Order: sequence, then structure tokens, then C-alpha cells
Amino acid sequence: MHLDVAFLGFGNVNRALAQLLLRKASTLQTDYGITFNVVGIATHSRGRAINPAGLNLGDALERVTRGESLQPLGSGTEPPDTLEFITRCPADLFFEATPTNPRDGQPALSYVRTALGKGAHVVSANKGPVAFGYRELAALARERGVGFFFESTVLDGAPALGIGREGLPAAHIRRIRGVFNSTTNYILTRMEADGLDLEAAICEAQAIGIAETDPTLDVDGWDSAIKTVIMANVLMGADLRPSDVEPVGVGEITLERVRQAQADGKRIRLICLAERDQGAVRVSVRPELVSLDDPLASVSGTSSLIEYETDTLHRLTVIEHDPGPDTTAYGLLADMVNLARGRHLAA
Amino acid sequence: MHLDVAFLGFGNVNRALAQLLLRKASTLQTDYGITFNVVGIATHSRGRAINPAGLNLGDALERVTRGESLQPLGSGTEPPDTLEFITRCPADLFFEATPTNPRDGQPALSYVRTALGKGAHVVSANKGPVAFGYRELAALARERGVGFFFESTVLDGAPALGIGREGLPAAHIRRIRGVFNSTTNYILTRMEADGLDLEAAICEAQAIGIAETDPTLDVDGWDSAIKTVIMANVLMGADLRPSDVEPVGVGEITLERVRQAQADGKRIRLICLAERDQGAVRVSVRPELVSLDDPLASVSGTSSLIEYETDTLHRLTVIEHDPGPDTTAYGLLADMVNLARGRHLAA
Repeated sequence: MHLDVAFLGFGNVNRALAQLLLRKASTLQTDYGITFNVVGIATHSRGRAINPAGLNLGDALERVTRGESLQPLGSGTEPPDTLEFITRCPADLFFEATPTNPRDGQPALSYVRTALGKGAHVVSANKGPVAFGYRELAALARERGVGFFFESTVLDGAPALGIGREGLPAAHIRRIRGVFNSTTNYILTRMEADGLDLEAAICEAQAIGIAETDPTLDVDGWDSAIKTVIMANVLMGADLRPSDVEPVGVGEITLERVRQAQADGKRIRLICLAERDQGAVRVSVRPELVSLDDPLASVSGTSSLIEYETDTLHRLTVIEHDPGPDTTAYGLLADMVNLARGRHLAA
Repeated sequence: MHLDVAFLGFGNVNRALAQLLLRKASTLQTDYGITFNVVGIATHSRGRAINPAGLNLGDALERVTRGESLQPLGSGTEPPDTLEFITRCPADLFFEATPTNPRDGQPALSYVRTALGKGAHVVSANKGPVAFGYRELAALARERGVGFFFESTVLDGAPALGIGREGLPAAHIRRIRGVFNSTTNYILTRMEADGLDLEAAICEAQAIGIAETDPTLDVDGWDSAIKTVIMANVLMGADLRPSDVEPVGVGEITLERVRQAQADGKRIRLICLAERDQGAVRVSVRPELVSLDDPLASVSGTSSLIEYETDTLHRLTVIEHDPGPDTTAYGLLADMVNLARGRHLAA
């Protein structure tokens, strides 16, 4: 399978993907029969380039590193905005890694809708379109016979969605539970291990680039809520929105509560839950005490965890350790392979 | 896809599978387009029955529960042995769940070879054929265009092999590490938690049916060695045999060592390892000290754990909690679905 691909956004994740694609090009060809050509890159602040003959990915990475525009790599006039870029760019597959908008998923939701609508595959690391438009976008992809994959939206590149969709065939998922947000887990771990108070732990997380300048999306539980909704909607047939979760974040967690938990032989973790309850799926995000013997307690720093309870396997736990843009990029690459394997056709 | 299926062995695992097949028949048909008919069952002490028109699985389960022979469910003369049963039985798929022979994998290795050789699919929970004949049997299956699946051989029904084969596309597995043997983990946990000495912990494991009357296969590390070899050969391209592992079991673990580990903030676990080392794959099984913060320490009782280190995902941990014949049976069912999905054709 040959794929002409384009990047929507060229920040940490899509640049890590570009490097991974260069490194894995021969593996993709040898093991999966995939060849690819990059025909477009759209960025927020470095311009947009479309080149149907293919543009050099190494050049593009260097230009962005040097702070230069990508526009000269394009073969025609520069599209005025990303929607126009999507419409004009002759890509078979768009890698969507623009920032997540936690309020309504826009403008990425429109990007994905436009790309699928014109019959292109979409592989996305962006949680917004999935959390706010999964049913619509999945139906559109089916109708157009294309793939819409988004493994990297939960637990970075770990196959958290893949295990639920592909790895547990004929099983009925009763409950999904986990630690889905790296930033708050890092904060809680620093409070536990180093006796920092909440504010100091947030500062540390910001200093090493884990937390955003405005950390409220993570701290108040909204990132966790968005991921919980994705799991509930995709793996449990729910049709929820992040606001249905009414998340409780870690904003009220004091050092005293962390120390009291430790004195009781427990730890505080921000637990995401999606559970079947009388025909519906109940979701919640809130700090909970977990016993030291629970794998949830062993998740420290930026690592994440997901636990599936099913009617066939009683309980299966998956932990991703030490995520980063490179592991998120791997999820995008895995999606590309699953696309080439036709996994969307059977779904 | 319609499959005429037969059971080799009708002990705990294949009986649990029979019950699961009855329970999941409509899910298999609705979600995966699979219908099936049972055309044969071969047992060690309850006779052999072949019936090309289909035999009633509920009747078979009841007969075995009552201690009666299955032979009356057959439509012709009873095959004199299992090899003859395989030759005569018109099954598309054999579920192989006879006991594992840790010395050479026989006679199950011959059963699998015979079934694949006549062009039938094989789904096996038996570690012997895979540990002693993986390359030969996989090549034979490819040649005949049939599937040879064995998810249940490691971590029971959890997708430990599936994640490595399907869930981490284009990744290079550098190291696999884990706790693969339930019996020894249960023994170590009882020593830790209840202060039992080794002998008493083994007796308890026997009393609740986890350990065999002769527990040496587990205690001396051979079951772990067999599973380690399966992972190394299937997921890392090695061509090892269990004897290459030279396992160290838990036979020398004293209560004093367990207590010393606890005093040092650690736990003893029987660690299975397969690791790339200068072009080869190095394997070992031995008791090791693990820190309480390591997910390996959180695996207690009969639960098992596997950890993958790859060049793309740094580290991924999978834990199966509370396995039993029903979870092993689920691995067989998942293999059947993967067969119907044509997963063997892409491998």
C-alpha cells in the first residue's frame, strides 16, 4: 500500500512522528508493504506547504528547528488556512496533531470532518474530535470507506484502545478504570515522595515541561474526563460528553491529605472510571485512596494505567511507563499500520 | 465463516471452553460471522466420539460430569487412539488442551503436526508443542494455509502474545520480563503475607488445586522456562528450547530470605527474562529482589505479569489478575476469532 500523507500541526508530536517515519521507513516497507510520500504540512506559525510530488521531511524538520517557514517547500500558492489546506492537499492520510480544545474539540473537529468527508483517512492524536464527535466521525469514515484511528489519545502510544477493540474479541467490557493523566500523577508523586505542596509540585511539573503554563485543564480533571469519555464511547458504546463527567481534580489535595494517606498505607491517585450501571455507562474522575498493593499505587511519575474488567478476563491491567512525544508518535505510526492492515474495514 | 470444531482433551480447560462457546455462540455469529458445529471430542479416560453431523456439547458436558464415556455420542466406530481420531475427524479446527509434557512436548507435538498436516487449523493451550516445535509447526501451518494459535500458553487468556504480535506493529522488542508462573507466585505471596515456610506454602497451593501433586515442574522453574522460551521464540525470533534456560526455581527460598527481603523494602519474585544480547536472545528464570514500587511487586497470588521493552514504547506492563480455566478458555476463544479474522494469513 502506498500512502500520500500530510501533517496537520507540526509541533512536538508530529515532528517526533516525522522522525519515526524516517527511522522506520524500511521496516514499514519490508514488514507491512507500506510506502509513503509526504505531500503536505500545515502549521500554525510556520506556514503551510503542499507538494503533490512529495516534500523532503528532513528539510521540513530542519526548517522548523531553524524557525523558518515551511511555505517554500510547497509547489503552489500557500493555502490561506488549515481547512483550505485540507481541501487542496492530495493526501490519502492526514496525521492530525493540533492542540486539543477541551470545550468543543474545535477547530480540529472540522479538520477531521473535512478530511474524512473528502475520502481521506485520518490518524489523530487530538482528543477533541474523538471526545466531541466520535459517533458522527466514525459513521462518516465508514460511509466513505476510510479509516479514523486515534490510539494516541489515551495512554499515549500504548495500545489502550487497540486492546479493547482488537485484543479482547467477543468479550464484554464491564468496567474501565485507570490513571489517564500524566501531569496530575506526577504532581501527586512529587507531593508523596518529596513533601512538596500542591503549588510547588505544579511549578516543578511546569519547569520540566509536563504541565502547561495554564495547568487547569490537567489539575481540574478535564483531560482525565475527556479520556474517560473516549474510552466509554469507543469501547462501551456510550454517547457521553466531557461535561457529563463532572470531574473532581487534584486542586483540593493538600500535602496533609497526601501524608495522611501514606500513614494509612495508601496513596492518592486521580482515578478515571467508566462502569456499566443498569444499561447506562456511569463515568467519574476523582481522587481516590488506593492500597499500596494495588497496581494503581505503583504508577508513579508520568506513567499511566488502564484496567479492563470483562465477562471473560476478570481483570487486565496495562501500564505505560515514561511517556513522551515519541511514544505518542508511535501510536500514530501504529494506527497507520493498522490502516494498511485494513483494520477499519472489519470494525 | 463456519467451523466444524473438535476437542483434543476434555479436562478443565476444554470443558470451560465448551461452556464459553455455548454462552458466546450468538456473539460469535452476530459480531464476527462465526458459526460452529462440534464434530468430535477425544479424551484420555472418557473415550472418543466423532460425529460429522454434529454432537451435542451440552450432552457431552453432562456425560463427563456423570463420569460416563463420550463414545455413544459418536456416529461410527471409536478411534483406537488420539492420532487416529485426528486423522479421521472431519474438523476444520482442533482445540488442543491435553497436558503439557515439559520434556519434549509429546504426544501433543505429534497431535498438532498431524492436524496441521491434514490442513486443519489448530488452537492450543498446550505449551509443549510451541516450546519444542514452534518454527516447524508455524512453517507447516503457513504451507497449508491454516492457522496455528496458542494465546493461552502464556498469561492464560490475556493477550500477552497478541500484544506482541499484533498490538505493537513496527516495534522492535528488546526485552521481555515478567512473572509467568502462578503457582510459585502464590507460594511466595503466602510466605510473605502469612509467614508460611516453603513446604507449608506448597501444601496450601496443592490443597486449593493450584499446585500439582508433583509440584516440581512449577517450583523448579520449568513451567516458567517453557513460557520464557515461547515468548523468546515467537516474539523475538529466537530458536531456543526450555533446557537452554537452566532455570533456578523457588526451591531454595527460605522464609528467612523472604523476611529479609521484606525488611529491606523488597519482595522476591520468580522473574522470567528474554533479552537481546549481541545478536542473540539471552533467557533466564530466577528469583530476584524487586522493589515495592515496581509493578512486579504488586503481582500477588496467582496473578501474572509481562513487561515489554521496545524501541518505540519504552516499557509496557500487562497484568492478568486471578486466572483460572475460564480465562485460559477465553484465550482459545479469542484465537478462534482471530482465525476467522484471517490473522494467520497476514502473519
